[in-house]
Amino acid sequence: VLEARDRVGGRTFTVQNKETKWVDLGGAYIGPTQNRIFRLANEYGIQTYKVNEKENLLHYVNGKSYPFRGSYPPMWNPFVIMDFNNLFRTMDKMGEEIPREAPWKAPCAEEWDKMSMQQLFDKICWTSAVRRFATLFVNVNVTSEPHEVSALWFLWYVKQCGGTMRIFSTSNGGQERKFVGGSSQISECMARELGDRVKLQSPVYSIDQMGDMVVVETLDKQTYKAKYVIVATPPGLNLKMHFNPELPPLRNQLIHRVPMGSVIKCMVYYKENFWRKQGYCGSMVIEEEGSPIGLTLDDTKPDESVPAIMGFILARKCRKLSGLTKEERLKRICEIYSKVLNSEEALHPVHYEEKNWCEEEYSGGCYTAYFPPGILTQFGKVLREPVGRLYFAGTETATEWSGYMEGAVQAGERAAREVLCAMGKIHQTQIWQTEPECVEVPVFPFHTTFWERNLPSVGGLLRFVCVSTFLSVVTTSGLIAYKKGLLPRS
Amino acid sequence: VLEARDRVGGRTFTVQNKETKWVDLGGAYIGPTQNRIFRLANEYGIQTYKVNEKENLLHYVNGKSYPFRGSYPPMWNPFVIMDFNNLFRTMDKMGEEIPREAPWKAPCAEEWDKMSMQQLFDKICWTSAVRRFATLFVNVNVTSEPHEVSALWFLWYVKQCGGTMRIFSTSNGGQERKFVGGSSQISECMARELGDRVKLQSPVYSIDQMGDMVVVETLDKQTYKAKYVIVATPPGLNLKMHFNPELPPLRNQLIHRVPMGSVIKCMVYYKENFWRKQGYCGSMVIEEEGSPIGLTLDDTKPDESVPAIMGFILARKCRKLSGLTKEERLKRICEIYSKVLNSEEALHPVHYEEKNWCEEEYSGGCYTAYFPPGILTQFGKVLREPVGRLYFAGTETATEWSGYMEGAVQAGERAAREVLCAMGKIHQTQIWQTEPECVEVPVFPFHTTFWERNLPSVGGLLRFVCVSTFLSVVTTSGLIAYKKGLLPRS
Repeated sequence: VLEARDRVGGRTFTVQNKETKWVDLGGAYIGPTQNRIFRLANEYGIQTYKVNEKENLLHYVNGKSYPFRGSYPPMWNPFVIMDFNNLFRTMDKMGEEIPREAPWKAPCAEEWDKMSMQQLFDKICWTSAVRRFATLFVNVNVTSEPHEVSALWFLWYVKQCGGTMRIFSTSNGGQERKFVGGSSQISECMARELGDRVKLQSPVYSIDQMGDMVVVETLDKQTYKAKYVIVATPPGLNLKMHFNPELPPLRNQLIHRVPMGSVIKCMVYYKENFWRKQGYCGSMVIEEEGSPIGLTLDDTKPDESVPAIMGFILARKCRKLSGLTKEERLKRICEIYSKVLNSEEALHPVHYEEKNWCEEEYSGGCYTAYFPPGILTQFGKVLREPVGRLYFAGTETATEWSGYMEGAVQAGERAAREVLCAMGKIHQTQIWQTEPECVEVPVFPFHTTFWERNLPSVGGLLRFVCVSTFLSVVTTSGLIAYKKGLLPRS
Repeated sequence: VLEARDRVGGRTFTVQNKETKWVDLGGAYIGPTQNRIFRLANEYGIQTYKVNEKENLLHYVNGKSYPFRGSYPPMWNPFVIMDFNNLFRTMDKMGEEIPREAPWKAPCAEEWDKMSMQQLFDKICWTSAVRRFATLFVNVNVTSEPHEVSALWFLWYVKQCGGTMRIFSTSNGGQERKFVGGSSQISECMARELGDRVKLQSPVYSIDQMGDMVVVETLDKQTYKAKYVIVATPPGLNLKMHFNPELPPLRNQLIHRVPMGSVIKCMVYYKENFWRKQGYCGSMVIEEEGSPIGLTLDDTKPDESVPAIMGFILARKCRKLSGLTKEERLKRICEIYSKVLNSEEALHPVHYEEKNWCEEEYSGGCYTAYFPPGILTQFGKVLREPVGRLYFAGTETATEWSGYMEGAVQAGERAAREVLCAMGKIHQTQIWQTEPECVEVPVFPFHTTFWERNLPSVGGLLRFVCVSTFLSVVTTSGLIAYKKGLLPRS
């Protein structure tokens, strides 16, 4: 294993210090249906705990905080309710038409790929409240802007996470749990097993397939030879390597077309867990252009020590605020927390940790790669197509929870089995394997209500009102005309 | 000069062989207002000649060929004429609002950058004929699809080439001339002057700025030290290098967000210049989804030897046809030439040369980098911002004819002067310099006619018709009412 950094873990990054005990500055959350990562954690005896969601969540919009329960903030205006319901129902329905292993084969793949999510929102949404929330939904899930991402790709992404409920929920969703002691432990345990076969600070700059063996060279001037190589970087970071022979044309262009999202993960530490006392669990959904943070979760330790709030600076805001000092960012974050929680205490943090993933040369950004409009249909099919004796892993090549730790495990195991198959050790049909459900982390289906399934969209309602008004006017005037003897009676 | 390839020239690539004498498989065309590249050519005594445009051009659409003269194929349906005129006038007008040196500062920068060109076309165009031609216009100019590129970026690109007429024209435009003997000669002459200071086959994989000097390492295990370094690759190819310290966050992300276009340049050679005898100059504008080629130009040598047609396989077609064999591509190309020229002779080439730029690791594609929606406003300002002692050249960083050889010269000279300024040898005000007009290649302004300036758009006409119909109905009924005594006379 050739690792570019001086640590294993990649986009997971657990830091230990006396102020925080430990803190995940990268990938941290796991939840039901992510069975592969739970299996690994079980193997290594790493425990999980539930992110605190006992008290109320908060939705901050138009300068006011609204407590709520459940996955999504409720809306009050009936038009907004219909509009919201229709949007999320439509995204899930469209997702059903997209094959998770080959989104470019969806019946409407070309049409949806030419559209950005912004265009799709403009088509579906009638109210600015829903359009604004939809933007946050894209920002939070893929750390990029609706106008930057292909609709086909984003709908695929949500679908392969299990839909709009699974991806966004804390309880019963992707953010349900964290690892006690931090997520990097998984990679660290694996690295310990592998011993000195893991080479740190060994960025690969050259891959040569001209001879019998694949020859790989690293910045620290070491040369490695292997029969097969698995490249497990994000696709765009294949560019850090010089290939001999050159990559095939489509892959050579694909890797210039899949940028990584933009996010700063920010952890603010407090003396006390004051929000819980106020009846808030620490989850905040913040819709406010001036707020650096879009979403928060409680990050207090499972034993209630080290009270903390985790918040994300996302997409456009990440680029805008990258230029500030750490202190300035902390100040602005505390200010918005103080407003949302209506608490003076939020202004007095005792410690701050942050990680701007945009500055990481060997990640390129976080959480994951996105596909701009037009790319998935034109280049998607070469995403995990082997090139000679090179095989491709990395969470971007997964078909379940791609973009998450779960996807990384699926991809790594699949790529390993591809190599085993190429070596003649397993049959081709064994490459892709399903994963049994983890018993400790049960999956609950999301039930939709009658109203969620049948409430019309705003457009549908307006059409209904128009048509029924027209029909009743026609009927009424017919009746009147008939009564007044204006119609011929046979 | 550390050159990755075994030749200088980059995206210019002149091949010499007995069948072609010489042929430009990369950048080839030059024209009025590209004064810097003409200056260089003059210095080295490299002659230019005019691309043949004496006879009729051909526009192939809906399965038929229409001969024409001038820069753009004429349209016949009056609605299409209005629509076409309005679209190109609007693109030029929008371009006028975009500062060439800082497109992100345009008054509507954010709005236009969130839109793809496809969205802009959908907004402006009323007829499918114009929408289809607009797609070809994007394909030809930037080797990508309208839904892939930011409207702000594309409008800037056209503007900094001098507008829709200058960029697309052969005579008096960007394709007016070629170099006798091929375009690579410019770089070759420069390399000859530099002697053994040009190191071929020396791809840089590491740039270290931690010490007093910048330390640069190459794949052939050489180490170079310098006080300053100019990086002259396309922005996306900065990724081939490992940086110490890491690049700043915005640049680190920018270089993952600016893919190169997709094009195969195809030269078909014939025994005779049969198209000229038919009264055609060899320029064909081909609108036909099944045709591999979108645009051709005569590529016969200035002394009328080596008859040939140059054609581009562009964007979506390039990706689709990359999988074919060279022979299959040639066959399909000859078939469409035979249809467009209505000539059996087109089916019998004597030689074929092609270059698929998508497969070039050290270009990533051709002609140039494009900006997908949302990127230019968020990351554009760091495009040529120095990073420590690194300075950035490459045609993508130019402000006049960026994407062309001219832009590469502007950028290289500007970056060199930035370094001179950093060394205290010139003043900051001397970094950016204008270029006097080349006397041998006069620039003629494009005059717009009264009708081009004042013809309404289709939408404008419809509004006019509606309003005037309404007014005349009102006036007429008023008059009738007055005459019939239905209005009170005071």
